Formats: sequence, structure tokens, C-alpha cells
Amino acid sequence: MTRTLAVVALAAALAACAPSEPPVRWAIAIHGGAGTISRELSEAERREYEQALASALAAGRDVLAAGGSALDAVERVVIQMEDDPHFNAGRGAVLTWDGGHELDAAIMDGSTLACGAVAGVTTVRHPIALARGVMERTEHVFLAGEGAERLAGELALERVDNDWFTTPRRLAAWEALRAGPPSAAPGGGTVGAVALDAAGRLAAASSTGGTLGKRRGRIGDTPVIGAGTYADGACAVSATGRGEEFLRRGVARAIALEAEIGRSSCAEAAERIVREVLAEGDGGVVVVGRDGRIGMPFNTPGMYRGAADAGGRFEVAIWDDGAR
Amino acid sequence: MTRTLAVVALAAALAACAPSEPPVRWAIAIHGGAGTISRELSEAERREYEQALASALAAGRDVLAAGGSALDAVERVVIQMEDDPHFNAGRGAVLTWDGGHELDAAIMDGSTLACGAVAGVTTVRHPIALARGVMERTEHVFLAGEGAERLAGELALERVDNDWFTTPRRLAAWEALRAGPPSAAPGGGTVGAVALDAAGRLAAASSTGGTLGKRRGRIGDTPVIGAGTYADGACAVSATGRGEEFLRRGVARAIALEAEIGRSSCAEAAERIVREVLAEGDGGVVVVGRDGRIGMPFNTPGMYRGAADAGGRFEVAIWDDGAR
Repeated sequence: MTRTLAVVALAAALAACAPSEPPVRWAIAIHGGAGTISRELSEAERREYEQALASALAAGRDVLAAGGSALDAVERVVIQMEDDPHFNAGRGAVLTWDGGHELDAAIMDGSTLACGAVAGVTTVRHPIALARGVMERTEHVFLAGEGAERLAGELALERVDNDWFTTPRRLAAWEALRAGPPSAAPGGGTVGAVALDAAGRLAAASSTGGTLGKRRGRIGDTPVIGAGTYADGACAVSATGRGEEFLRRGVARAIALEAEIGRSSCAEAAERIVREVLAEGDGGVVVVGRDGRIGMPFNTPGMYRGAADAGGRFEVAIWDDGAR
Repeated sequence: MTRTLAVVALAAALAACAPSEPPVRWAIAIHGGAGTISRELSEAERREYEQALASALAAGRDVLAAGGSALDAVERVVIQMEDDPHFNAGRGAVLTWDGGHELDAAIMDGSTLACGAVAGVTTVRHPIALARGVMERTEHVFLAGEGAERLAGELALERVDNDWFTTPRRLAAWEALRAGPPSAAPGGGTVGAVALDAAGRLAAASSTGGTLGKRRGRIGDTPVIGAGTYADGACAVSATGRGEEFLRRGVARAIALEAEIGRSSCAEAAERIVREVLAEGDGGVVVVGRDGRIGMPFNTPGMYRGAADAGGRFEVAIWDDGAR
């Protein structure tokens, strides 16, 4: 028995050292939106956001630490953030110019390039679960509006009234906007997660209410595969910020492609594109590469974010410099 | 007078020879869809398609030859093809599973990265004009469904009943599909154009009815900036084929990025991605680079296509080998 154990331990040690076998590891990064985050945030408010981020991050970490898939981990994180009224996704989403909620989400499995996205969802409690339904239960990738709602019915996903998504804070912001001339304002608070699992698979997921005061039917970058959300064998990306800028530059696809062709690592590509290609104030991304390296660059004053990995890292942050 | 003319002629000749000044040229390529195109096409049918392609190509050529912009040229081509019942865009679009038409389109100006896209349009005669309206008249990039229809009303674009788009051929195909089990079939016939104008600007435009028998709300690659349509300073791309495959690979963005970072020319990048990244039967693209080189690779038995340039090239083709 002792001898058997010793052999097993030796085999495990050798396997861990074998150069052809990458170390078994996992990593996850999440965001709750980039933008102007007031440093005047009260101590209590700051702590609330940090707790919300830590709780979502822990949910994803638990999936990965238990050997779950990157896909399950990112979906789990986003479902939790959709339910959390602090963020602009699911409950707590911003309002359109008309005063309703239109929700967008996307999910992608980097190991197969399978992906699913929804836009203009109005009654589905967890748009990210519907995006996964598009991916796994239809032959399509992207469904919008009533067609997406219909699929939610077929899949028996949880439904809510549209005003279930409304929170007093978002309603007040909408009322202030409507008091001025017609215009859209940054929503802030789009959520997303990227993960690498112990099997080496990457995945990304994002969900949002879009921009405050948006036109009916407006689709931003979040549900657009290659703009706000992307994952392949090299890189997983979830973006947040001025959606139209991420769309016109195909930011998530560009980061992944730079990593794929070996121009740089996923984290370096993300850093370069956020600093050199996007304009100051556009937003940020969270990424993780097949090397397990996490990147969380942003060019806004702050980005709600968190990172954890198999090495024991577990941290959340709001501003650039860690200043509180 | 003679002396003035001579000076002008000399100045023009010098300007043409200055190494820092690229030769003034223009180029345009168009497609009317990739897929299985029967070689049993009757001589009369083949000629009809060739004439339809030549007519659309001539419309774009005329804009460019007169010094017009690449953006105007690609819009002009697509408007004409939307009106032409031979193609799966505008009039002649395939039907959804429910028996209606939902039209998608996108346009992009490579010189500014300005872009506009619409999805799920049901009553706008020229979806590409609405996409241009999104680009030029809103702060958004992408509008779907009723929100897009509403903008068409604000811009006073021409409207038609949804069944105006129906042709006997598409109705027969839909009836045949409905007689079998639920499934979507390749639509074929998505249209698109890419152009380089004499000022060195690139542009791309695409329009489609999507896939025959698609679910309500399904969005394919055509209106997704970076998937089926993209243009920047290096490359303009319009794709046609199995939309979901182009979406998950961010094909148009990938081609442009390879050209942008100097990994290869736009035409070479298109060739490589269509041959090596996409699977046999997925479809094809038309591209033009800032070097004026046109690429029209496809991995289907045929692709309706045409190319013209300032050097006098003017050709249309259907199959790979020019066989008729």
C-alpha cells in the first residue's frame, strides 16, 4: 500500500515535471464595467461593489477549482452579476430612451468556437443563459428580439416582467436624461468574465443593458462575437465601454488574432490595443490566454474587476492605482 | 494659352511620377452569393445572372470612374442588387420559417471606420440605405427590428409591404422546405461589394435575406461588422456563405487585420483564410486592398461575382474555372 502510494506520488511528480505537459491550472477574470467611477464613492458604496465583485469572482473560482469547465464558470459569474442590481446587466440594467430594458448577451467556447448571442431581450431573467441556449440548442449563433424571446419560451427559461429589471438608481438616471435633450449616455456596468479551465479550455461571456437612453433596437458590442466577446484556443476576451468603438475596431477578434498568430501573448495584445488602438476613455477588457496570464487593461478612470487563479490569487479592484 | 496648358500638363505628369504619390486608380469587386450553383443552369438562365452581375458592376464602376467615393459605389451596387430578384437581398430574399422576410445589411467606410448595420428589417425597400442612415444619422452602429424600422420612418426611406420582397422562386423553395422537417437551408445569393476609390479610400457593403427557413430574429454574418462586412485603411471585405461559420471566426476582421499588420496583402489574406481557416463549402469573400488588388476566393462550387478597375478590367463569373 505504502509502496503503491509512493509510485503514484512519483508518477504524479513526474507528470507535473514533464515538459510536454503544461501545469494543470485555471484562471478567471471578471469585470463589472468601465467608465468614470467617482472617487467620491462613499466607503460603504465602495465596499458594496467590492463585495459584489468578490462574490461573483468566488462563484466562478468555485466552478474552476472543482474541475468545472471554463464555459460553466463564465456563465455562472455572469448569471450572478445579472441578478446583482449594482451592474448594468439583467436586474439593474439601464433604460432605453423609451423607458424600457433591452438586454444583450453573448457566450463563446474557445475550444470549439461554438458561440451564442442574443440582443433586445426584454423578459428573460438571465440573458446569458439564453445566449447559451442559442449556442447549444439552435443551428444559429445570434438571435434578436421576439425571435430570441420565443426561444426562451421553448427552453423554458425563467421569465420576468420588463420592469423587474428596473432599479431606483437607473430610473433616476433615466429621468434626469429625459429632462434634457435626446441623447444616449454611457451605461457603465456591462458585465463579463473570461476563464481558462484545468483542461486548457478558454471561454468568454458578457451581458449588458447597453447605453442609457439608447434607441430601441440598438445593438452594442457586447453580443457581437468578435467585438465585445470572443474566445478561441489562444485567448478569451470580454470588453466594456463605448460599444460602438469596440464594434468598429472588432476589438475582441483583433486581440485574439494577435495572440493566435503569435505576435504577442493575449495579455500583451489586450494591453496594446486598449492603449494604442482605442481612444482615451473608450473602456477596457478582461482577457485570459492559454498561458493562464490575465490582462485587465482599461483607459477609463476605473473598471470594476477581479481576478483569481489556481495559484491562490484572488483580488478585486476599481481604480487604476489601487487608490481607494 | 498653349504655354499654360503645357505647364499644367507637365505638372500633372510630375505629380503622376512622384514616388510619394500612388497612381490614381480605382477598383471594385462584387458578389451575388456563393454556394452550389447548378452547372445545369440553362444558357438563358446563366446569361440572365451574368447580365444582372454586369449591370450591378457597371453601376459601381460608373460611380468610381466619375471620381465618386468608394462608399457611394458600394451602396449603389447593393441598392441595385437589392432590387434585382435574382439575388437573396431586398426583392428576391428568401423566406423565414414563418414565411416572412427579415433583411440584414451593413456598410463601412474604411477611411474613417464609420459603419452602420441593420438586422430584421421588414418593410424597407433598400436595407443598405438604412444601414447608411444608421452610420450617418445616429450615434449607434447597429439597429435591429422595430428600432431600425422606426429610423427608416424618421429618414423617410422608401417602404414596401413585406410580401413585396417575395418572388415565385423563393416561395416555391419555402413551400418545399415546409413540406419537410423544420430546418434552415442555405439561402444563397447574399450580395455585397467592395471598392477602392481614386482618393485611396476603401469601403464595403453587404445585404441579405439570410438563410431560407431561418428562425425569427436570426442574425447572420452579413450585418455583423467584422464577420461578413469590414473595411479599414488596408482592406475592404464582403462575405457570403454559411453565416454562422463566418461569425464564429470573425472572418472579415481577421482578413483586414492580417493585411493591416503587414502579414500579407489583403488579397493573399483572403485567399489563405478561405482556403485554410474556413471549411470546404463554407462560402467566399470579395476583397480589395489599398494596393488595388482584388481577391475573390471561395470554397463552394460557384460564386456569382464580378470585378472591374481603372485599368479596363471588367468581368463577371459564376464557376471556379470559368466553365460554362
